Amino acid sequence: MAGLYYGVAYYDEYIREERLEKDIAMMLAAGINVVRIAESTWSTLEPENNAFNFYHIDRVIDAMYRAGIAVIIGTPTYAIPGWLARQHPDILVTTPEGHQKYGRRQIIDIMNPHFRQHAENVIRTLISHVSQHPAVIGYQVDNETKHYDNVGEHIQTAFRESLKARYPDITEMNDVFGLEYWSNRIDCWEDFPPIDSTINASLGCAFARFRREKVAEYLAWQANIVREYARPTQFITQNFDFEWRGWSFGLQPQVDHFAAAQAMSVVSVDVYHPGQAHLTGHEIAFSGDVARSLKNGRNYYVMETQAQGFAKWTPWPGQLRLQAFSHIASGASMVAYWHWHSIHNSYETYWKGLLSHDFAAGPTYQEAMTIGKEMAQLSGVLEDLHMHNDVAILVSNEAMEAINWFRPDTPQPELNKHGHYLYNDILRRFWDALYDRNIAVDIINTLDPENCKYHAIIIPALYCATDRELENINQYVAKGGKALIGFKSGFCDQNARVRSETQPAILSQSCGVRYNQFVIPDNVTLCSTADALACAPDERPEMWMELLTPTSEQTSVLLRYNHPYWGEYAAATLANHGDGQALYVGFLPSKELIFNLFSLLVADEGSVCTTPKYRWPLIVRHGVNKQGQAIQFIFNYSTTPATIRTESVVTEPLTGKRYDRGEQVSIDDWGMRIFIQSA
Amino acid sequence: MAGLYYGVAYYDEYIREERLEKDIAMMLAAGINVVRIAESTWSTLEPENNAFNFYHIDRVIDAMYRAGIAVIIGTPTYAIPGWLARQHPDILVTTPEGHQKYGRRQIIDIMNPHFRQHAENVIRTLISHVSQHPAVIGYQVDNETKHYDNVGEHIQTAFRESLKARYPDITEMNDVFGLEYWSNRIDCWEDFPPIDSTINASLGCAFARFRREKVAEYLAWQANIVREYARPTQFITQNFDFEWRGWSFGLQPQVDHFAAAQAMSVVSVDVYHPGQAHLTGHEIAFSGDVARSLKNGRNYYVMETQAQGFAKWTPWPGQLRLQAFSHIASGASMVAYWHWHSIHNSYETYWKGLLSHDFAAGPTYQEAMTIGKEMAQLSGVLEDLHMHNDVAILVSNEAMEAINWFRPDTPQPELNKHGHYLYNDILRRFWDALYDRNIAVDIINTLDPENCKYHAIIIPALYCATDRELENINQYVAKGGKALIGFKSGFCDQNARVRSETQPAILSQSCGVRYNQFVIPDNVTLCSTADALACAPDERPEMWMELLTPTSEQTSVLLRYNHPYWGEYAAATLANHGDGQALYVGFLPSKELIFNLFSLLVADEGSVCTTPKYRWPLIVRHGVNKQGQAIQFIFNYSTTPATIRTESVVTEPLTGKRYDRGEQVSIDDWGMRIFIQSA
Amino acid sequence: MAGLYYGVAYYDEYIREERLEKDIAMMLAAGINVVRIAESTWSTLEPENNAFNFYHIDRVIDAMYRAGIAVIIGTPTYAIPGWLARQHPDILVTTPEGHQKYGRRQIIDIMNPHFRQHAENVIRTLISHVSQHPAVIGYQVDNETKHYDNVGEHIQTAFRESLKARYPDITEMNDVFGLEYWSNRIDCWEDFPPIDSTINASLGCAFARFRREKVAEYLAWQANIVREYARPTQFITQNFDFEWRGWSFGLQPQVDHFAAAQAMSVVSVDVYHPGQAHLTGHEIAFSGDVARSLKNGRNYYVMETQAQGFAKWTPWPGQLRLQAFSHIASGASMVAYWHWHSIHNSYETYWKGLLSHDFAAGPTYQEAMTIGKEMAQLSGVLEDLHMHNDVAILVSNEAMEAINWFRPDTPQPELNKHGHYLYNDILRRFWDALYDRNIAVDIINTLDPENCKYHAIIIPALYCATDRELENINQYVAKGGKALIGFKSGFCDQNARVRSETQPAILSQSCGVRYNQFVIPDNVTLCSTADALACAPDERPEMWMELLTPTSEQTSVLLRYNHPYWGEYAAATLANHGDGQALYVGFLPSKELIFNLFSLLVADEGSVCTTPKYRWPLIVRHGVNKQGQAIQFIFNYSTTPATIRTESVVTEPLTGKRYDRGEQVSIDDWGMRIFIQSA
Repeated sequence: MAGLYYGVAYYDEYIREERLEKDIAMMLAAGINVVRIAESTWSTLEPENNAFNFYHIDRVIDAMYRAGIAVIIGTPTYAIPGWLARQHPDILVTTPEGHQKYGRRQIIDIMNPHFRQHAENVIRTLISHVSQHPAVIGYQVDNETKHYDNVGEHIQTAFRESLKARYPDITEMNDVFGLEYWSNRIDCWEDFPPIDSTINASLGCAFARFRREKVAEYLAWQANIVREYARPTQFITQNFDFEWRGWSFGLQPQVDHFAAAQAMSVVSVDVYHPGQAHLTGHEIAFSGDVARSLKNGRNYYVMETQAQGFAKWTPWPGQLRLQAFSHIASGASMVAYWHWHSIHNSYETYWKGLLSHDFAAGPTYQEAMTIGKEMAQLSGVLEDLHMHNDVAILVSNEAMEAINWFRPDTPQPELNKHGHYLYNDILRRFWDALYDRNIAVDIINTLDPENCKYHAIIIPALYCATDRELENINQYVAKGGKALIGFKSGFCDQNARVRSETQPAILSQSCGVRYNQFVIPDNVTLCSTADALACAPDERPEMWMELLTPTSEQTSVLLRYNHPYWGEYAAATLANHGDGQALYVGFLPSKELIFNLFSLLVADEGSVCTTPKYRWPLIVRHGVNKQGQAIQFIFNYSTTPATIRTESVVTEPLTGKRYDRGEQVSIDDWGMRIFIQSA
Repeated sequence: MAGLYYGVAYYDEYIREERLEKDIAMMLAAGINVVRIAESTWSTLEPENNAFNFYHIDRVIDAMYRAGIAVIIGTPTYAIPGWLARQHPDILVTTPEGHQKYGRRQIIDIMNPHFRQHAENVIRTLISHVSQHPAVIGYQVDNETKHYDNVGEHIQTAFRESLKARYPDITEMNDVFGLEYWSNRIDCWEDFPPIDSTINASLGCAFARFRREKVAEYLAWQANIVREYARPTQFITQNFDFEWRGWSFGLQPQVDHFAAAQAMSVVSVDVYHPGQAHLTGHEIAFSGDVARSLKNGRNYYVMETQAQGFAKWTPWPGQLRLQAFSHIASGASMVAYWHWHSIHNSYETYWKGLLSHDFAAGPTYQEAMTIGKEMAQLSGVLEDLHMHNDVAILVSNEAMEAINWFRPDTPQPELNKHGHYLYNDILRRFWDALYDRNIAVDIINTLDPENCKYHAIIIPALYCATDRELENINQYVAKGGKALIGFKSGFCDQNARVRSETQPAILSQSCGVRYNQFVIPDNVTLCSTADALACAPDERPEMWMELLTPTSEQTSVLLRYNHPYWGEYAAATLANHGDGQALYVGFLPSKELIFNLFSLLVADEGSVCTTPKYRWPLIVRHGVNKQGQAIQFIFNYSTTPATIRTESVVTEPLTGKRYDRGEQVSIDDWGMRIFIQSA
Repeated sequence: MAGLYYGVAYYDEYIREERLEKDIAMMLAAGINVVRIAESTWSTLEPENNAFNFYHIDRVIDAMYRAGIAVIIGTPTYAIPGWLARQHPDILVTTPEGHQKYGRRQIIDIMNPHFRQHAENVIRTLISHVSQHPAVIGYQVDNETKHYDNVGEHIQTAFRESLKARYPDITEMNDVFGLEYWSNRIDCWEDFPPIDSTINASLGCAFARFRREKVAEYLAWQANIVREYARPTQFITQNFDFEWRGWSFGLQPQVDHFAAAQAMSVVSVDVYHPGQAHLTGHEIAFSGDVARSLKNGRNYYVMETQAQGFAKWTPWPGQLRLQAFSHIASGASMVAYWHWHSIHNSYETYWKGLLSHDFAAGPTYQEAMTIGKEMAQLSGVLEDLHMHNDVAILVSNEAMEAINWFRPDTPQPELNKHGHYLYNDILRRFWDALYDRNIAVDIINTLDPENCKYHAIIIPALYCATDRELENINQYVAKGGKALIGFKSGFCDQNARVRSETQPAILSQSCGVRYNQFVIPDNVTLCSTADALACAPDERPEMWMELLTPTSEQTSVLLRYNHPYWGEYAAATLANHGDGQALYVGFLPSKELIFNLFSLLVADEGSVCTTPKYRWPLIVRHGVNKQGQAIQFIFNYSTTPATIRTESVVTEPLTGKRYDRGEQVSIDDWGMRIFIQSA
């Protein structure tokens, strides 16, 4: 299918009234053209072992087909039936809190052979049953899959075996992980300790990586089974989610999305975010940058996002529309709500769908009718929309795991529920700084210095990395790249072992700087020592302070610490290295300061990275559509209407209106404009 | 016995010194005329299985009898002996935190057959031993009984069997509880899941109700055993307690007091409350309103209340007396302290009794001497005192359970230890608003529209109710009643399933209002749209906001939200329905606003519900005594002495003094006046 | 060896690079003359059961010997190897949180016979291997030993047996501990309840004392094994640590240091403290006062203290030197850092040693070079330095345990992580008050009135004590002593049973005061009623208020409470008793007020306790060296340089300079002066 998908998750199984035809009529009125079904309903589909009941699935697919609505089939494996838990209690995952009890979803040991056997059976039965139905356009394998803190026997044994294979000489493992510390060294594999109580971060990070690999393996296993039945035109996807802080906050620590996306033909994500006065677009765009980047800029699906959601999220007029087109401006080609109707029982009763519990055409549904109409109208214009960005942020699951393990900053209970800056807090600070200034970025997890299309790379807290990864950064700079490198980068090797080279290890070569000590900021401000760098007098280093000393004439000091005893040290430096430049910053800067540092770094890159005219709450995004037209989106994330001037001759596809360059255009509160820019 | 009881709990078992005769002499000097004994001392009474030692019980009863002090015998079952825990470890309750270990009281599985067998044995042996003693006036079965979070095998099995009996077709159970959600559906009873880990609120609430039923059954079982031995003049009671927030705060979630009171001949309660500057009388009067209402206005016993209590509660001069007569003004005919002497060992060492650890006649004891004298003097005047109230508050254990399960508001850690408004926070807000304005209320848990004596009913957050219960409210209004109905009422059916009718479901008929969306207040104020309704400019909706729209010409909007996007919706409405009126309020109002709304609602009810002259800290209560005299109490809950004018000719029974109408009377700080009003 | 030790902990086992000779060269350059090795490395020493590998130990001892650096051998028992945990899982301690899993250190049941057997084997093998080596100067048995919350079967059985032996008549045990309460009484030993779930504080405190005894027994057992091999010149020590609040805060609750020190030939401690702007010297001096007092003023070793430590502790210039000489001024003759190099893996990666992870000569190491040089230079002057104090603080593990069990104050979450004033908060308030005013104290845990060298004794919160202990205090006063006695002293007997005598029990005799009630301060201030006592108008009683009444003409009231109802009571009193005086204070005073009360008490003691000229941040300490010279230390714990005048003719041993009396001397920020005072 060409164009844009506008969808909902639909659960005929949960509904007591006879609603199917009424719901479809309302869907059509709202322009809904796709539904996802079946992903949570194993016990209804297979009420007892190997006895299947396709009543709900069949009637929904058939009815949708008649209405011209496409169907995505979810494999139902992330919530198991009671009979399966009873027959194989070992399927329930063992976490550090113990063997889990039946009730919630996502409490399974994904490595358990009984689980795999029953999951395979239900997948094969379901997919073979539906795959030839013309309504079915694709499949979602499992849902929001993670490892669920698995520390069960299966995964511990598999982990130990994987280490045995990697380290035939057990001494090497002791060396690599530093097990001598606190008498943890082992001299035979039988003595391998319980991993859930280890205090050895190197071992802990290796186990975390192993668990991420097992998630990817599990998803690929499901995808391969589905692929046996799928028609070539049908897609296979997974619904990735993000670090959850009450909403989609950052990179997912339990999954390597880049690895797991390999087995999928398209990437889907679920994106939840604050609403009402707290709707800012950050989460939509961040999640979108990740999702789009997982397959090199390919369009992705927003498989779940909020319609009404929590009571605190109920959208204000205009917000649902703003959200939908913000997803599209990030590269989404599907926006699907969780979920159609609000659920009357059980657990997520207060996470409301497009309809309230009364199934009435309430305000949110009515706004969806507008969106559906506009999506249909714009489908040709926004189809196959692609973004071409000059800047990328380099992220790392390994760095995240290790920095979150140590949390080397001083606990601050008022900071967040962790009381610490986690990796994602640091990553988001850098990402947010650029978003707020309308600098569009991609997200990458490897850097090939030979083939890098980006003019500038941001590298926040690359705490763990191999020699090669660090050398690649040096080489990227040497070949003319611009790198903004954050504190703690280069600190450890790939095994979370602190490097004994001068810090920032290996990177000190391109950055022209070194440090031997680091402290916690306490009553310290910053001052700029570079003319081109603005730094407000109340700017403070947050979280961490490396006491930097330039190592070369090539290095200029950009910032110093104001402090009676640390004032002699640099806080940020800029070094020429080969044909490029590396800016090293030894602390966590404010968003304003990140932007200023970045601007300084790319000052000579011409228009590619220059300061855009607008800043949040006016968000500007650009893409190129199938026809090669340049599309501009302007979003107003505020309660105050805005006025802008067009930057070129543009036409507005929704109205057909043409604007000259420099013409004034108003944007409503929580409103938007979409323009086709003249060539 | 006629008149008022003034009592203490007494534990000869805990005392090392030879104190009995000395204590009795001090009791007599303080007017103590009743003691409760034996309720915590099973291991002393039955030091090994079926071997009994009546030493302490006999000597106390005999000595009390000689002194003319009445004795209440508590069955000792709420704290089991070590030998019983050792012989039957299964007696110890299993909670979601695991199988409990011996040590604390109230850690038993009240459904365990071994427990029942040993409890029955000790009850029969004890009661048969004492029942003919002339000192014994009654029995307390168990103490502060609850289900202790029981999720053990016995209760889970019994619950499943009860569901099997109720739903012979298992599909109906799946339907009623919505088990399809997250694959929780079961198709055979063997697959019934562990209830303690369910995420299904409907199932969870059904289990909670089942546990409440089992508490009532257990208490009735004890009462029936005791009744076999009791003399007809002896009462049987239970000591009910309340939701505990460091003191007696609200309705008890684990017990349906209305149901459990059926098996008792008189209701007892324990009432603990803040002291010193934080003594307000709220808890005394709230607990009293509940206790008095459990048996239709019958006098009740305060079986436990604080003498000195915690160090932060040590009463200021006058407070102990103020407290005692406040209980009586709520309908209590016994005020008994926990406990006589302060305990030297173990756990409650800092919960002090009437005497400190030194057994000396300290300040609190000395104030008790005054109270005892006055009680004796007023015994005839205050005997059989009854209250006749025009207003009732309708409460519901089912609504409490479900609203506390979901906690649909946004967490606010600073609010209380739950971070949420619980049912009792809402109930207390409404109750407190009326208490502060001296509007006396009863507490009811059913409403029979055919036989309702109340002019006005307050209905806070009736989250769950049957069709009939909601229709009864409509009918009560239609027949001329005034109903003040709070947000979230009518939302769910009796199974905590959200109703799919227009909200407020069924009640929308009498209230003439509907809503489809609800949000969390965030920077919103209220404004009055009714002349007769005062609303301060800084009044804010708390906790919850339903976006109301009137459905009829009969409905007038009383309040609107001040908000850029929600301003079009009503916040409170008043509708004529039949001969009565229903006032619906879509948010949690301040106490001031509740009072204003209530006043508006009952404006035409004449004197019955009109605004009293005084407000807290001056609390005025009325009752009618055995002789039919109107008794007026005026309490000064403050450090500032007060002056009032009499409203009629009155006599003061304590002094014998007569006051004309309009005469000035002073009331000391923390003082009171009791008047007999002339007919 | 004569003189001062300057040392580090060294772990050849943890180091990947070949560092030994390089490290020794750097040590020598820094004046390091002692290393401690082996105490955490059991799995490297004994990689499988009874197979030993002395590679690291031998090469380090030999290399150190060649360099002239002394070696302390730690027994490696506080962190067990994985093979031992696997072969005897029962060795892992069972705590109230359950049976611990392998990983961390200090998770062993020190009473487990398998543990004892394997520990004995490794100790004998190690010590016999090294004891004759000329580099080895002594031994540390185990490390920071505690009972690790042991509630396992071995210790519970042993505790029960100890009670059986102490109370042949079980009734006596019930009486002493008050087990009748809540039906806890037992009549045969088989019914003895699980101790970890007891609610009986008397029983709980008895168990806590038993566990402390077992720690002492275990350490003595190790010391005795080591002693079989040790040469007579070699010392045996243990590294005691303190109550941990993120640093060394107060007396160790799990160990009776006075008892445990008996088996050691010298006391060692580890001392960690806040740094940078939060470096005050309190923890150094408090820990030193305890350590020095454990063996009657003998010099002690600081076996571990921070070099760089946490990032928030990284020393400012001068601080490392200030810290080192502060230890010596408290009586230490060794200052040893944990640890030499920073650890690259595992857990304590951010607890940095003298070197950073890069092994470079960073700023902290460079300051150590200065210190090492000065230590060598001053070794003769500061050798055998002894303190002679007139004031002592009486502490009690029993009082600590019981007051921490009950925590009778009102919870205040903002206070600390416990939300309560614990015993050490009270103790430290009194100790800190004197430290800040440069009044040097010893710490004692018994008071012999016949042989007491102290002019004044401070007794904070002696909550539990025997009759004899309390009578000793009375007698000490009667014989002319001055006692400052804090609230809650005398409240309970040695079994945590509240005394039924008039409070403060037994002490009321010397203090001439009584109370029957106590309350929590709430909006109360204090006012002085004694001319000689200054009390600021905003002084408030903290934590607790006893409502005091003098019992004698001999008692003068010093302070009263400002309160509408408690104003009639005294807050602090001073009584003559025999030849001495007892000052009783019924609340927790501010440091300022403690100092004022103490000054009043000792006003007539002449110079011995008079107010020193300086107060914190200028800290003055005195000692007498081997040659009988009076040594004066002046420390400046601040960022502001200071100027003082000499109080006598002095010479400065570091510079050789001589100062006349009254000469001005400057002290750098975070600087110090050491003077030899002329006779």
